[in-house]
Amino acid sequence: MHEWISLHREEGTCFLQKIVRIPSTQGNEKEVQALIADKFRELRLDVDVWEPDGETLEKHLYFCSPRNRFTGSPNVVGVMKGSGGGRSILLNGHIDVVPEGNWDQWQDHPFSGNVVDGKLYGRGATDMKGGNLSLLLAVEAIQSLSIRLKGDVIVQSVIEEESGGVGTLAAIVKGYRADAALIPEPTNLRIFPKQQGSMWFRVEIKGRSAHGGTRYEGVSAIEKSMIVLQHIRELEEQRNARISDPLYAQNPIPIPINIGVIQGGNWPSSVPDTVKLEGRMGVAPEEKLDDAKEEMARWMEGLKGKDPWFEEHPPVVEWFGARWVPGSVDPGHDLMRVLMEQYREVKQEEPTIEASPWGTDGGLLTQLGETPCIVFGPGITQVAHYPNEHIVLDHVFEAAEIIALTLIHWCGFDGMEA
Amino acid sequence: MHEWISLHREEGTCFLQKIVRIPSTQGNEKEVQALIADKFRELRLDVDVWEPDGETLEKHLYFCSPRNRFTGSPNVVGVMKGSGGGRSILLNGHIDVVPEGNWDQWQDHPFSGNVVDGKLYGRGATDMKGGNLSLLLAVEAIQSLSIRLKGDVIVQSVIEEESGGVGTLAAIVKGYRADAALIPEPTNLRIFPKQQGSMWFRVEIKGRSAHGGTRYEGVSAIEKSMIVLQHIRELEEQRNARISDPLYAQNPIPIPINIGVIQGGNWPSSVPDTVKLEGRMGVAPEEKLDDAKEEMARWMEGLKGKDPWFEEHPPVVEWFGARWVPGSVDPGHDLMRVLMEQYREVKQEEPTIEASPWGTDGGLLTQLGETPCIVFGPGITQVAHYPNEHIVLDHVFEAAEIIALTLIHWCGFDGMEA
Repeated sequence: MHEWISLHREEGTCFLQKIVRIPSTQGNEKEVQALIADKFRELRLDVDVWEPDGETLEKHLYFCSPRNRFTGSPNVVGVMKGSGGGRSILLNGHIDVVPEGNWDQWQDHPFSGNVVDGKLYGRGATDMKGGNLSLLLAVEAIQSLSIRLKGDVIVQSVIEEESGGVGTLAAIVKGYRADAALIPEPTNLRIFPKQQGSMWFRVEIKGRSAHGGTRYEGVSAIEKSMIVLQHIRELEEQRNARISDPLYAQNPIPIPINIGVIQGGNWPSSVPDTVKLEGRMGVAPEEKLDDAKEEMARWMEGLKGKDPWFEEHPPVVEWFGARWVPGSVDPGHDLMRVLMEQYREVKQEEPTIEASPWGTDGGLLTQLGETPCIVFGPGITQVAHYPNEHIVLDHVFEAAEIIALTLIHWCGFDGMEA
Repeated sequence: MHEWISLHREEGTCFLQKIVRIPSTQGNEKEVQALIADKFRELRLDVDVWEPDGETLEKHLYFCSPRNRFTGSPNVVGVMKGSGGGRSILLNGHIDVVPEGNWDQWQDHPFSGNVVDGKLYGRGATDMKGGNLSLLLAVEAIQSLSIRLKGDVIVQSVIEEESGGVGTLAAIVKGYRADAALIPEPTNLRIFPKQQGSMWFRVEIKGRSAHGGTRYEGVSAIEKSMIVLQHIRELEEQRNARISDPLYAQNPIPIPINIGVIQGGNWPSSVPDTVKLEGRMGVAPEEKLDDAKEEMARWMEGLKGKDPWFEEHPPVVEWFGARWVPGSVDPGHDLMRVLMEQYREVKQEEPTIEASPWGTDGGLLTQLGETPCIVFGPGITQVAHYPNEHIVLDHVFEAAEIIALTLIHWCGFDGMEA
């Protein structure tokens, strides 16, 4: 296995360059998915390509997307049928990438795919086309080495992970399930049996306008927003003080509440009468999304005790945009055991087991798809979503090897093809 | 005088409705200026209509405008020549109005001109078409009553006050000067011999981006901006502690620093790496704009002592957009005496003398045009720039009467026309 993968590094790198060079942002996934479907066919998988039906899906409780039409945004699934009697596995990777942002901040073309010092650069390299290549190589290695597995391997290249998981939702609704699942999102080769969820929220804080020259006649929503920011910080402290899971022991703030956007006022000489905050609330792996929402709503009531202004002008909290369902798999689950063993085998060291600081489609697979999902992949989140995103190619190939061996041990070895 | 104005309330109200109903926002002043020029001609003034030459003006030290072409944006000046031997006066009002903003926030059409309970509604009613009507009525009353004045009366209807004063600048450059000036901006009939200036500034605060789920790996520019906001608040305290002018005695914060806009981050799940603040710095009547800028720059250096982050990432202060030159006229100036006397005569009470909480084109007239300018007019700033802007018509007519009498006593009465 190690040798096969070593011999196919160049070929793999070329394919990764190819798929990174296609900017598969939301709505633009078709071209790269066609390439993936061709690859699946080359690997002799049963290929299923379809555009999710937004009109049906949007009635689903777990639907979350800014759009309800997915024309030109197909999912691609390939199935490698096992010979029978083994456990099935679902390998899921998303093909959508977040926008590249301001080109000035990139040292190179944002979709260059260039390799420098063993790192491949470009939007999506880490999140998560590098991980997708690990999956493809694992399956290709098994095929090429004529290894016959007992259980089915289902490989999914899905859309919409970055905006709420409709691609994976559509695959679940279509019936794709397995005994377990693995998503190679960038964990930096750590193993995450638990993953936090997250939800986006918006808080609108009111002030009262006045001319800036007589600002004492108004109430600045910017000043009031500072109280709200501090109040939210205290909620984050309380929520995190409750987290005792040892898988979060290395994490200074297991489930952060991040304020990512602030926007208020519209004229330098006016006292601003509105400030809008937008943020992300982390949700613990075993927590329910609705419970977290309720806690936030209750907590915001406490603002009234901090400033009488909020009694008549309570900040309004709204949940909007994306959310990722949390998920938790027992660290004693047998896929954990198998994966850890293969990790030790390949890396000759003990794997790091943690709970994730972010959500993936794995929560949907675990909670809705009843397919317990572990997250393990190459790449680091520090560069995901940022300029000069890149991935260390060595890690892509290490992950491919560990995953290939995991498939054999999980699905069961049924001998070599004739 | 009182009788003439009483008899012409309806006519005056109609004219104010007419000019309020024309939305003379920046770039759209032509139609209403044509009406003003016609009015001036009707009053037998020598009329001068011209579009300021942006290419020449933009080289001027006092030029401040977001545009350098004023095609379709004429100034209108009307001169009523005196018989000679008297003091001249310049009456200045701006015709430009700020945008009406969101129509939803208006109870009526933003340019309705409707009169309800003695108040005339519409963008520009208070700032400052109401005051402009006071000027027009004052001149018309004098003409209609066949009063001959010794000194010249120069009436200016200028563009661009709301964005830096290019209209008044162009008139000064063209040579319009007088022994004194009066601007009927909305002082609520208080008399302002001194007016503060103001300047717009922008502060950019840097953070370091990271994924919101691992926000502790980044540095939130929103959190850092709270330190900057507090720091600016302390500068405001220091600057205001120095103000001992009794004309500001009634003012809780004579020269405020208002933060009107905050904008930072662009993704709920990312630690924001930039926050931009925009504000207005009040400048004391006798202070130089450059001294105030320097004080701000020096003060911002002090942030380094509050948070080591700012040593490597000092917030950048930029002066942009509009600024209004401060101005100060000796409260013992003879126009003050004359105006106060006419105020007592008409209102039968003592006038309130204060320093202004905002700037007008009067600073340019006083400092650059060497025409000492007093600000006195109907209307209240609380409604200027806001939805449902309106003006109390009684105050427009009172101001007209006080101004008409002031013209007679300042310019000198030379008998009645034949």
